[in-house]
Amino acid sequence: MSEQYIEENIKDNLIMRYKINETLFSGRSEFQKVEVVQTTGYGKMLLNDDLVMLTERDEFVYHDMMAHVPLFVHPNPKNVLIIGGGDGGTAREVLRHTTVASVTMVEIDKMVVDACIEYIPQTSSELLGNPKLNLVIGDGVKFAKETTQKFDVILVDSTDPIGPAQPLFGDEFYADLYNCLTDNGIVVSQGESCHYEATMQNKLMNIIYDKFAVTSIYNFHNLTYPGGFWSFTFASKGLHPVKNFDPARVHKSQLEFTYYNPDIHVAAFALPTFQRKNIGQFIKG
Amino acid sequence: MSEQYIEENIKDNLIMRYKINETLFSGRSEFQKVEVVQTTGYGKMLLNDDLVMLTERDEFVYHDMMAHVPLFVHPNPKNVLIIGGGDGGTAREVLRHTTVASVTMVEIDKMVVDACIEYIPQTSSELLGNPKLNLVIGDGVKFAKETTQKFDVILVDSTDPIGPAQPLFGDEFYADLYNCLTDNGIVVSQGESCHYEATMQNKLMNIIYDKFAVTSIYNFHNLTYPGGFWSFTFASKGLHPVKNFDPARVHKSQLEFTYYNPDIHVAAFALPTFQRKNIGQFIKG
Repeated sequence: MSEQYIEENIKDNLIMRYKINETLFSGRSEFQKVEVVQTTGYGKMLLNDDLVMLTERDEFVYHDMMAHVPLFVHPNPKNVLIIGGGDGGTAREVLRHTTVASVTMVEIDKMVVDACIEYIPQTSSELLGNPKLNLVIGDGVKFAKETTQKFDVILVDSTDPIGPAQPLFGDEFYADLYNCLTDNGIVVSQGESCHYEATMQNKLMNIIYDKFAVTSIYNFHNLTYPGGFWSFTFASKGLHPVKNFDPARVHKSQLEFTYYNPDIHVAAFALPTFQRKNIGQFIKG
Repeated sequence: MSEQYIEENIKDNLIMRYKINETLFSGRSEFQKVEVVQTTGYGKMLLNDDLVMLTERDEFVYHDMMAHVPLFVHPNPKNVLIIGGGDGGTAREVLRHTTVASVTMVEIDKMVVDACIEYIPQTSSELLGNPKLNLVIGDGVKFAKETTQKFDVILVDSTDPIGPAQPLFGDEFYADLYNCLTDNGIVVSQGESCHYEATMQNKLMNIIYDKFAVTSIYNFHNLTYPGGFWSFTFASKGLHPVKNFDPARVHKSQLEFTYYNPDIHVAAFALPTFQRKNIGQFIKG
């Protein structure tokens, strides 16, 4: 058998080729192509529409930074909403916080959830049988518009703004999210790359700037995302991601993390000059 | 003509393929293969032994972070030594500091210098005709052992620890560098990736820890280095990279940077937990 590779076509004519041993799952849902492959250097890998969503080797970076930054800024996060996040990694990290009483996770694509439950237990371990988790297979945009529940923290754990995730980068969706938040609420969203998606990052920051009292953006180093340099946007009704962050709470939690720590929490909000030029006008609070 | 690609074989079976329009230069020196190609998305690219050394698109990140962090920690850097750095980008950034009276650059491979002068003026602009620059074609290891000059800041702008750069990751070299420093001196070195070269990063930190009063490591996001997440080691006879850093000096300099700024300076020293576990015991001061 000849050598097998998964190819991800990055913008600007960079192709990343991962050597794989085996395709564990390949299907086409109503929304997208879904694949799980066994790589030789990165553990199992989930791809949607040929884009790397996660690898077992580095998923800790993304999930640490999406979950723990807002959960340690909010003084008492009880009810958390995850939009997307079908692999389960974000839910897994959220559920480690003992303050959290319930997690509602709304994932549009059942095939992603099922494939991860079957093939990637590392991220999906909490998706079955955790009594605090309410897993809804459905449209997050519709859910945000119709729900009467209120959430302390909302995490928009979306794919890139193509295919099913496109409305998750829209103005109306964020107006609905605002209405789903408690008075102290925080929304953190997958915020793309300042190298490859500067225009999208600018657009997303503009949207939250129009609606929220406090807005910011923070960065993390993901090994297998193109360029390695990725962002989450931060929007809240009043809590500031650094000024309202107390490192003592992290120590007191006794939780241990592979990427996250109090220094990284604060440092993540320092932006390189070129990124600040692109979106600095949309940071407030 | 079929499409042309440059392939970089990364550790752990990831291959990065850049589409190129044209090979501008290809030669084999006494030390290594040297190529300059015109890519379609990253400007011109320099490769040594098939490894991407720089691209015009993101070289600002590496050169900003190598030069400006130590030059803004040292209160009055006058004499600077660069080991390697044949593309000229580090010298270019160092020479922007008005305190700097002389830069000695010792590059082993004349072919790298010549190729960059001819094809990559963006980085090599200062290599010809700047009266403050003393360009020596020679072995940096030998230079460090034999010179009687003393330097305020030494920048080890090396390739990876294979081929000609191997001794630059050695114990004896750092003992010699220590002897080339003024009493307030600082050495900053290309420190590899904590994802792909954790063992090498540990070894390098151990070497400087044995010899210097203050040791640390700082991170930056390079778009085209594998994984995007890269480090510089910091070693000094007494100056601390954060405690002895005064942001006001950056503002006073009136220099503008594309990546570097005072917030990034401080934030770069915050380490993810897994990296801290690997090398935290070698941080002191």
